Formats: sequence, structure tokens, C-alpha cells
Amino acid sequence: MRVLGRSVLVLMAGLLLAATPASPPGDTLRGFTLESSKAERDWETKFRAVPSTDSLRSYMRRLSARPHHVGSPYDRDNAEWILTKFKSFGLDAHIETFDVLFPTPIERVVELVAPTKFVAQLREPPVAGDPTSAQQSEQLPTYNAYSIDGDVTAPLVYVNYGVPADYDRLERLGISVKGAIVIARYFGSWRGIKPKVAAEHGAIGCLIYSDPRDDGYVQGDTYPRGPWRPRFGVQRGSVMEMEVYPGDPLTPGVGATKDAKRLPLAEAHTLTKIPVLPISYADAQPLLAAIGGPVAPDEWRGGLGITYHVGPGPARVHLRVRSDWSLKTLRDVIARIPGSTAPDEWVIRGNHHDAWVNGAEDPISGQSPLLEEARALGELLKQGWKPRRTIIYAAWDGEEPALLGSTEWVEAHADELAAKAVVYLNTDSNGRGYLGMAGSHSLQRFINDVARDIEDPETKLSVWKRTELRAIADASTAERRREIRTEPDLRIDALGSGSDFSPFLQHVGIASLNLGYGGEDGGGIYHSIYDDFAWYTRFDDTAFVYGRALAQTVGTAVLRLADAEVLPYEFTGFAETVGRYAKEVEKLLQDEQEQTAERNREVDEGMFAATADPWERSVPPPRQDPPPHLDFSPLANAVDSLARAADRYEKAFGRAQGSGTAFAHSGAAALNAILIHTERALTVAPGLPRRPWFHHAVYAPGFYTGYGVKTLPGVREAIEQRNWKEADAQIAIAAGALSAEGDVLGRAAAQLEQLAP
Amino acid sequence: MRVLGRSVLVLMAGLLLAATPASPPGDTLRGFTLESSKAERDWETKFRAVPSTDSLRSYMRRLSARPHHVGSPYDRDNAEWILTKFKSFGLDAHIETFDVLFPTPIERVVELVAPTKFVAQLREPPVAGDPTSAQQSEQLPTYNAYSIDGDVTAPLVYVNYGVPADYDRLERLGISVKGAIVIARYFGSWRGIKPKVAAEHGAIGCLIYSDPRDDGYVQGDTYPRGPWRPRFGVQRGSVMEMEVYPGDPLTPGVGATKDAKRLPLAEAHTLTKIPVLPISYADAQPLLAAIGGPVAPDEWRGGLGITYHVGPGPARVHLRVRSDWSLKTLRDVIARIPGSTAPDEWVIRGNHHDAWVNGAEDPISGQSPLLEEARALGELLKQGWKPRRTIIYAAWDGEEPALLGSTEWVEAHADELAAKAVVYLNTDSNGRGYLGMAGSHSLQRFINDVARDIEDPETKLSVWKRTELRAIADASTAERRREIRTEPDLRIDALGSGSDFSPFLQHVGIASLNLGYGGEDGGGIYHSIYDDFAWYTRFDDTAFVYGRALAQTVGTAVLRLADAEVLPYEFTGFAETVGRYAKEVEKLLQDEQEQTAERNREVDEGMFAATADPWERSVPPPRQDPPPHLDFSPLANAVDSLARAADRYEKAFGRAQGSGTAFAHSGAAALNAILIHTERALTVAPGLPRRPWFHHAVYAPGFYTGYGVKTLPGVREAIEQRNWKEADAQIAIAAGALSAEGDVLGRAAAQLEQLAP
Repeated sequence: MRVLGRSVLVLMAGLLLAATPASPPGDTLRGFTLESSKAERDWETKFRAVPSTDSLRSYMRRLSARPHHVGSPYDRDNAEWILTKFKSFGLDAHIETFDVLFPTPIERVVELVAPTKFVAQLREPPVAGDPTSAQQSEQLPTYNAYSIDGDVTAPLVYVNYGVPADYDRLERLGISVKGAIVIARYFGSWRGIKPKVAAEHGAIGCLIYSDPRDDGYVQGDTYPRGPWRPRFGVQRGSVMEMEVYPGDPLTPGVGATKDAKRLPLAEAHTLTKIPVLPISYADAQPLLAAIGGPVAPDEWRGGLGITYHVGPGPARVHLRVRSDWSLKTLRDVIARIPGSTAPDEWVIRGNHHDAWVNGAEDPISGQSPLLEEARALGELLKQGWKPRRTIIYAAWDGEEPALLGSTEWVEAHADELAAKAVVYLNTDSNGRGYLGMAGSHSLQRFINDVARDIEDPETKLSVWKRTELRAIADASTAERRREIRTEPDLRIDALGSGSDFSPFLQHVGIASLNLGYGGEDGGGIYHSIYDDFAWYTRFDDTAFVYGRALAQTVGTAVLRLADAEVLPYEFTGFAETVGRYAKEVEKLLQDEQEQTAERNREVDEGMFAATADPWERSVPPPRQDPPPHLDFSPLANAVDSLARAADRYEKAFGRAQGSGTAFAHSGAAALNAILIHTERALTVAPGLPRRPWFHHAVYAPGFYTGYGVKTLPGVREAIEQRNWKEADAQIAIAAGALSAEGDVLGRAAAQLEQLAP
Repeated sequence: MRVLGRSVLVLMAGLLLAATPASPPGDTLRGFTLESSKAERDWETKFRAVPSTDSLRSYMRRLSARPHHVGSPYDRDNAEWILTKFKSFGLDAHIETFDVLFPTPIERVVELVAPTKFVAQLREPPVAGDPTSAQQSEQLPTYNAYSIDGDVTAPLVYVNYGVPADYDRLERLGISVKGAIVIARYFGSWRGIKPKVAAEHGAIGCLIYSDPRDDGYVQGDTYPRGPWRPRFGVQRGSVMEMEVYPGDPLTPGVGATKDAKRLPLAEAHTLTKIPVLPISYADAQPLLAAIGGPVAPDEWRGGLGITYHVGPGPARVHLRVRSDWSLKTLRDVIARIPGSTAPDEWVIRGNHHDAWVNGAEDPISGQSPLLEEARALGELLKQGWKPRRTIIYAAWDGEEPALLGSTEWVEAHADELAAKAVVYLNTDSNGRGYLGMAGSHSLQRFINDVARDIEDPETKLSVWKRTELRAIADASTAERRREIRTEPDLRIDALGSGSDFSPFLQHVGIASLNLGYGGEDGGGIYHSIYDDFAWYTRFDDTAFVYGRALAQTVGTAVLRLADAEVLPYEFTGFAETVGRYAKEVEKLLQDEQEQTAERNREVDEGMFAATADPWERSVPPPRQDPPPHLDFSPLANAVDSLARAADRYEKAFGRAQGSGTAFAHSGAAALNAILIHTERALTVAPGLPRRPWFHHAVYAPGFYTGYGVKTLPGVREAIEQRNWKEADAQIAIAAGALSAEGDVLGRAAAQLEQLAP
């Protein structure tokens, strides 16, 4: 369910790391000896020669030939086909099933009942020249999964993106959504946030529409003339409260196996509180045009040829949703290459195979490279390659509704994963452009090194170099450009949610990466029936060269992680990054203090009253208590000791790597046994406040952003929510996690110092 | 021809002055003794009681009852009615005529000839409930005055606002407008800049349209439901190259009197080089929708429900314009109240009376308050008030085409004005909201003091206080808010062009102010037939309370300037402002140096090649020679000596004002005789490069902005145009003017020091 390619550039926003020097001189790979590096490079070169654009094209044609959402015949068919493929590559593979709650729609109605009548079509028509767009009977109707059933009629209010800041603005306009149906546009947050925040403010129903400004004709020509969303195109998608916990709503924290203990439906915590439906802009326009009241604030105005008003009313809307709430079966396809030396250290690599629709882009553009990687690994195995560690390839089912396949699998195998998982490498959709790198910062150096070894298909530069130059082009200040040019590594982004890495990273604490190309692959077919082979092969990675590049990138990473004598984590970059986060949350409080003081002063000096247009209703903000000062010193001390431990480890690591032989020593196994726990050390047993499923103290999806990451989430969100007592408690908890991490690093450094004194 | 009210807030962008303390304590007005202040305040209070909203409404109804453009019967009728009014108020008044080139359209054609056919309507239809919108036969057709005649057919290119930066962008896209017709949207510059820059780039025709994003349905409901531009609404307007010289193209620098020497039409310098027509968005949409080529850059996209493409073609357009180029007669209405003590010191106050259309807003909303001021002055005269100085009230004709009436009058009386004019106070359109103050910074303190004495009709605060609070609300940084809150005066903006102050300030060097209320008066009827009584009394200052406030504001200023014993100029604020401008031009060069170095580096490191999408055409910018360092020390030294002279003058002024009697001394006359030359000292005889009509060394309209001011224009524009040699020469010239100003202030200070040693 990755957000579209256009966003990748924003997400990666490549900054650079003011840290230790880049990889060791010459051809020595991090975590290898000079000698084993040579062997590794040979295998990697062989590996990268295998992936073929023809194979990728044929995989996509096959896998996206029919709609294949959870529970559909073709979803099962695809799983079985992938299983056959894995086996044909010579891999040991099986299908693992789970039974999960996945609602599918029975009734859907959206109609304007006043001041005029209009019935929304709620249907994406076939398009000439696009054969699979005619598979109407097999498609899921346009809907938002995990919306509760409901039948409501109420005045309509336009709420922009429907995020908390939009409701603050409504309050200033003197407008309430209590008892209203809201209409929000897509983008600006993960879609599930929109009905959640609407319900918090008293709305009784929610429509979400795709405004042409965001991914329709304002962006470019619409399908089939161009790649952008056509008039009746609808974005399906989940609205489950995944920021509380993803996966099956009925089995939180445990695998949804046949005989798992299930909550009754009424006790599922993560369904919406109000009914929701998504609509096209063709269906939205008559509704929006019928809204009266104040003209929408400037930045709320979309691309429809109308004046956007906020309401409420006179437009009244009738919204009706009813779903089939039966359990459906998931099929995760799991392949395994046993490790030769360290079979209990697992390198896991996954991409989902289910789609909302035909899903050529989402997810088959990522699933196909995964298959090519598996094929290439099979080739290497035949040539005598033996990975040191165990490699697991996974094609997940049910990612779209709620990261179902990955979450249930992780929950079912949580103890084993906690003991054995070294890394999880995720991809989702893929397109033309730049390598987006996000994940655990202990892998920042590692993935930068991989990116330096991959050739960009369009420019023949390394993908690292092209991404660096993109970052320079996008930098907004001279200082930013200077950093990018002088620092050795590109900064990678932290992970929020939105794809299958979430349970690995945030529930169990497994160092993870999410990778994908994008930035030149704009379009408006996300979660619509036009996401198909015809669209992808006309408007995206038409020659499948970025599919090949992705297979080469992730496959190289898998190989290198599976073969390294010592796990190539690097912690000075992590320590520096966390130090930055710690400064950010401190600054967040300071900003909040200053803003509160300023706003109170403005209230007192009458600024709001003086600048209100008497022809328009407006409500000044209330005075607020000034935020207290908090003691951030536990966090700062923990960051300092973490940085010292990271430095000590890196110095020892440099000596050991320089020695040429230390990593071949049998003591390396003991070192790896320590290193495997470094990411786990960052988890906290009670989890985050009000969402105990999320254990990671550094990375989490935002409670009010959904996909968007919140780093040091316990502290950051407590400050954002002005919960000072909780912020204080969370500072201690985060500091504890960072101290634990420092302790593990200290032990790893001590072990290394024994290897190369 | 003032740009609309919405822009006023941007223009005033109220900052504050880090300067001397505010006005003297108590009720002493600047330039008055304690005693004369009391008398003055009495007269001012009486004055402000006179203006009546009923009068304003009746003036507007009468003056906007029919279309009254230059040369129309109702333009003459209005002039004669205004003359009668002035006389009825007891003022000595007459009409002064000039004969000027003013083209009116004979033929107008805009049609799409490929890939499909479409003929533009070029006509604003009547609107139900708006009686004067039906006066179609009396209206000037929609056109751009001073477009040359032409008949061209060519591919169409969309150029956004059509300013130089847009052509830089086109170059990066590899698109040329050579031999093409360009279509530009209104806003972003004065409209005359658009055909000028298009012609410089080789275009052979120019269309200008009103995009709904800028003043149509994106902003709010359209007329008659709301105040914004309806589908077929067209913005008329001049496209003369007024930044070279305004006024009659055939008589540059001299009054266009009956027997003035006239250039032949072919030698007029200020006509466009290519034919131009304005069109509505209803007419523009089919043309824009037919353009192909690359999708327009994000910020170029307007509010039409289409994908904006750049072209060129396949849209081909036929454009035909032919005008009647005969001379037309202007009628300036001039009223005079002779000064009792200093008849040869003139306080001049003007607003134009001609319109493009019925012009309720532009200009009658400003002309009506001027008439109420004149009536109130008549009342005061009857009660025995005798102004110290001569007051001249002027209702200008022909402002819309080219500031014709004011420019010709100023040119005809240039010598007398240079000897006698103390100040020119201008208004144009007026609306609801905040007081916009712009002009000579020697009047900054003065107009701040006036604004403190006027009550805002909506909030009952002083208009000064409300404007200050607006500035706080709009400030983007805490530092800006701190400045606004702590400094005594609101900063006033510098004047570019766009109304009748231009010849006074920039040709002769008369200290000028431009005043008007706005910011709550948005709308899209500018220069369209819907700018009429029905629109204004429904959507703008419907109760005429801001018309009354404007009469009170400007009238108070006129009274105070006419009565002050010593002219209330203040120079420390001026010196500080000019010092800021000097720093700005220095920074401009530094930025240009840094940007050139950065761009060259980006070219060298291959950034442009690496980040170009190979599916889209793009051209990297060329390497440029690095700008040299320039010697700004003459300017800095001149600013320093000016600041010292201003301080010396202000100290002496404070002592004299504190003395209670010094201003009553006969020596005050000699002081005023010096002060009258302070603004003149800022003019330079040769004028600006390539436009000798513009004499002011500190304020000018931009050569590539048209309305927008360029301060220290000789220096600033030379740097902007990368003409380093000229920049060097202009630094010396600007420094010379500032030094001359310092010398005059030195003499004024010496004179003051004699009055109150």
C-alpha cells in the first residue's frame, strides 16, 4: 500500500551524515575480510547479471492479469503460482495460512438529498485500450475496508485533508462538524486518520475523495491520455486504526491461526467509529458545489472548477455502508535458503503479493523483482554459493487491508524472530527514478555502500550518486548543499508505517530497510482498477529497467548481509541521528512554549478581534496555560553514552577490519550473537502509551499521521498532545532504551577488542 | 488603475522604524507650536465631522451611472459636474484640457484555428439585477490600450505570468516563443510588462487572460452571486510601456497642450511591439486546453479544470487588433484654495475621475471622498479657516490609459511645481479594511501621526492601531513581531507606479503619499463592466464608512500640511530606510555572486544532467561569468552623512518645537524654503538609464515589474541585469543624490539652530 512514487523524493529528502569516514579503503566490504570481500564481490557480480527485464515483464503480466485482493480466487492462484516459482528456482518453499477479519462491501450509497438530488456512481468504468479495466465483475467495489456499517443522513462539511490542524482551522471559523458528515480529500495523512479525527470531533460519517489537484488533471493528463487519475477513478484503501495495532483486528498480538483465540467483532479496537466511503472527483464535485457557508481557506482549495466552501450544508448527504464481515484466508508464500555457518541468523526479505485491484504497480512492480532475486539466488546456489546465514523470502498476502500477512506471520513467529532475525528488507511498489532508502540507522552505512555499487539505468551513474545529486537539487539552503557534498553518506529516512516492515521493526525490533525507486513515476491510479499492466507498461518503468535495478539493489543487500563474517551494522550514524531527534523534541517543547506565549499575547492585545473581518464569522483561539519546562537531561545523557559506546565500537571495528583476519576468527560468532540484539535493545516492553503493540522507542507511525513517522514517538507525541506528565515519563523510558542500546554496544565493543586488541 | 484591494495588505506589509521617538509629548503636532496645535486640532475635528456617507453614495451613483472613459460623452459630463461641485463648495476651480493619443478599438479577433475551431466572444454580457451592465453600446470593447495594430496567426505558448523568470523557466524546458503567440495570465506584474517581455523573446502576439485562480471562482463566488470575476469578465487596461515614460506617447516631457510639438505616431516610443488583447477565462479555456507539449510547471497551473500545458502548439491562434489612433481631449478639473501666508507653497491632492468602465470602485470610490474633502474644506473656509499654504484639489482625467491627465499637467507646470510643490497626496480606489500607506519616507512620521487620529469604522480602534495589529498577524517571524511592537512608527512602503503620484514623485521630485483602505474588499471586477454601483454597494464598502474614513484621513493630512508653521518632514526615518535599501543592493550582488558560483558548480558536477527525466526535454542553464566585486563605499558613505545630517536636523527640530515659539518666528519661512527642496535633491538630471523621464534616485517603477517599486533603481536594476559597469556608475550617481540630500538637510539644520539655539 505504499504511497505513490511522487512522494518518495519527499520521503527520502536525502541529507547526509556528519560521522565517521566511509567504508574501509580498497575493496574491503564492511564486515568482511579482504579475502572474503573478493569472493563476495564475485558472487554479487554474478548475482546482478541474472535479473532480466523480460522475466519481470512476464511476472507482471501474469500476476496482474486479474484482480487479486484478499479472499479472491486469483489471490490464491497467485500465491500458488509464486510457490511454484520459488520451488522451480530450487528453493524450499511453502504457503502459510491465516484466517483474518476482512470486510467486503455489500451495500454502498452516497447521495445528495438537498438542496438538489444527486446519486454518486461509485464505480470506475472500463477504459478503451485497457483490457483488464473491463474485469468489472471480479473487482472489489470502491470502498474503505474496516469502515463500520452505518446509514446516516446529515449536512456536509468540507474539512480539507481532515487532519487535526484542519479542525483547529474550522474552530477559528466557528464551524463544528458535530452531527455532520465530513468530506475530506485524500493526501495530507494516511487515509485512516481522516475518519478517526472526524469521529473525535463528533462527525457521524466521512467521505474521502481524490481531488484533481492532488493526483488528477492538475498534475497532468489523465488516464488513458496520461498517467493521472481520471474523473471516475477512486482510491480504495483501508481505514483501520493501524496506528493502534495493524493486522487482524480480532487477534491483536498473536498469529491468526485456525485455532487462535479471537475477540468478538464488537470488541475489535481498530475499526472506524463512523461509516466511511471513498469517491471519485466526478462524484465529489456536485456535493462540494452544493456546500455553502464560508469560502474555504486558500490552501484548502482543490483543483475542481468551483468555489470551495466549508459548510455546514445546505448540502445534505445520505451515506450507507454495509459489509460482509466473514473471515478470509491469507496465503503467505515463504521460501527459505538455510545458512551454512549461522543458520540461526535470519536475513528476511519480503514484498506483498495481494492488491486492491490488478495491482501492476502496487505491489507487482515490487513483487516481480523479489521473484527475480529468488531466481538469481537459485542460480548462485547451483553454482556453489553457500550463504553463511539463513535467507527467508516472503511474498505476503493481505498487506493492503492491514499488513495482515506480515503481521500475523510476525506475531506467530515472534519469539523465534526475536532470537534469530538479523534484518528485514522490504519493498513494495517500484518505479522510475531515484533510490529511496529508509530504515534503521544502524543500516545507514550499509545501504549507502550497496547503493554505490548499483548502476542507474537512465544515467549510468551509481544510484547513490544520482540520489546525491537529486538531494543537492532539492536542498533549500546552501548549508544543506554543503552537508550533502561533504558528508560521506546520504541520510536515510526513519520508517513510519505503510508497508510490511512495520511488524518486524516496530513490534519485534528487527533492524529493517524499505527500498524502492521512484520520483519520475507520477500517476493517479493508486488503488484504482487502472493500476494494471496497460497503465504500467505505458507510463511507468516501461522497460522494467528499474525493476531490474531494484532486484540488483535488494539482492546485493541480501547477499552481503547473509555472507558477512560480522554483521555490518554501524552505530555512530545511528547515535548522531538519535541525537538529532533528541534535540528536535527539546526544540518542539521550546517552540510550543514560545507559540503559546505569543498566542496568549495576541489574544491579550486584541489582535484577533482587530483583524477579524466583521462580515465573516471567526473565533479567536483560547488562552492556553504555558507549557512547563521539562528535564531532558536523562535523554541527553543517554544519547551521550550511546555516542561514546558507538565510537568505541567503531574504533574497535576499524582495527579488527584493518587486521585482515579478525573477522575470520571464531570469536566473530559471539560478536554477532551480541549484535543481533542491538535493535531489540531499542524496544520497550510496555510499548507506546495507548498502543502497547508498538515497542520501538525510536521509530513509530504517528498517532495522527498514520504513515508518517514520529521519531522518539513517546516523547514527541506527548509534547504534541500537551500531555506534560506523560512527556516526562516518556523521556525516562526513551532514555532507558538508548542506555540499553549503549550497554549492548559496550559489550559488542569489548568482544571486538578481544578479537583485535 | 490601482491594483485591487487584496494587494494592499501585501503592499503595506507594515514594518516599523527603528528611529527617533514618536511625536512630541502632549498635543503638540509636529511642525506646530503648542498653541497653533490646539487651533489646528479644532479645525481638524470640525473637518472630520463633515464627510457624510450619504454624500459619498450619491456621488458614486452619479459618477458611475454611465461608462466614462477618456473621450466618452460621460467623461466630459463628469468633469463638468465635478467642476460645478467644486464651485458649489466655494472653491475657485477650472478645467484644464490636453489633447493626447488614446487608441480605441475598431477590430478585435481571437480565434483558435487548429487543431479545432473556436472563436472567442470578447464580450462581457449583461447580468440580471445589475442595470448598468446593460449599457453595452456605451462601453469600450474589451482591449488593451496602446497595443499596436496587427494581424498574426501562430502556434500558442503558455507563459504563466509572462515575466522574465517565466522565460528563464521556458529556456530550461527547451521551449522558445520565437514566432509564437503567447498567452499569459494577469497578475505577477503590471500587464504592460507581459507583451514587452514576450516581444523581447521573439513572440509575435500576446493574449492576456484572467485565470480563475487569481481573481475568479478559486477566490470566491463569482458575480453576481459573489464579488469575484465571472466567466466572461475581462480585465481591460493599458499596455503602454509606461516604465519608459507615462503620459501622452507623442509629447514626452512636455504638456500635450493644443500647440505642443508632437512626435509622429511612428516615433512614439511607448507603444507595444506586438499586438495584444485581453480575454476572459471562458474564452481562454478552449485555447489553453488545446495546447500540447510539456505539462506546465506546478506553480504555473491556474484554476481551470484542465491540465495546463506549455506548448508550443498544436493550438494555433489568429489574433487581429486594429485601433482608431486619433487624439482625444482630457479634462483635468483643478480647484485652488489660496494660501494666506505662504501662497507659493502648494499642497496638492488628487484622484482620477476617468474609468475604463462605469468604475464605481476604480476610481469613484476614491474620487467621492476627494469631493467630500473639498466640500468640508469649503465648510471650514466659511467658518473662517485660512490655510497657511495654497491647496490644490485635482480630479485627473485619463489616468487609466497612461496617467495622462496628471502627467500632462505636471509636465505643463513642471517649473512652477519644482519651485512650489510641498507634497502630493494621491488616492485611487478605496475599500473596506486597513489603511495602506506608501510614499516618500520623509512623510513616514507625518502620516503615522495622522493615522493615529482616525477611527476605524469597524473596530473603533485608530486605523493606525488596527493596521499595526494586522502587521503583527501577518509577520512571519518573531523578530518581525518584536520590531512592529516596539518601534514607534509603522513602516510605509516605497512607491513604484500605477497611479497619479508617479509624475509628481518621480519626474519632478515632489514628496508624495498614496493612501487607501483595503484588504477586506476582494473581488474580480477590476477594469470590467461589473465594476459598477450595483457591485460596489453589494460587495465592498457598502455603508461608505471607509469612504468617509478616507476623506477624514486625507483631509486631515491636507489640513495639517497646509497649516503647519514648519513642514513636518522627518528625515531620520528616511535615512534609516535608504540605509536599508543600500544594504539590500549590496546583498543583491552578494547573492548573485553566490548563486552564480553555485549554479556553475552544479553544471560542473553534472547535477542538471543527473536529475533530468530522460522522458522530458530539459536544458541545463549555461555557465556564467562570476559577478565582480563592486565598490559600494560611496553609497555607504553618503548614507552615513545623510544619517548624520538627519540626526542633526531632528535634534534641532526637537529643541525648536520644545521651545514653544520658535516655529512662530519669521525665520520659519526661510526654513520652509529650504525644506521644500529636500525631495527635489533626490532627483538626478539625466534620469535613469534608458528612461530619462524618471528622475528620482530612490524610487522608481521597475523596468520589468511596471507597478512594483525598485528602490535605488539605477543601482538595483543594473545589478539585476548583470550590467556591472552601469552598476558602478549608478552607485556614484545614487551616492551623489544622497549627499545632495544631506547637504540640504545640513542647511535646514543650521537654519533651525538659529531659530532655537
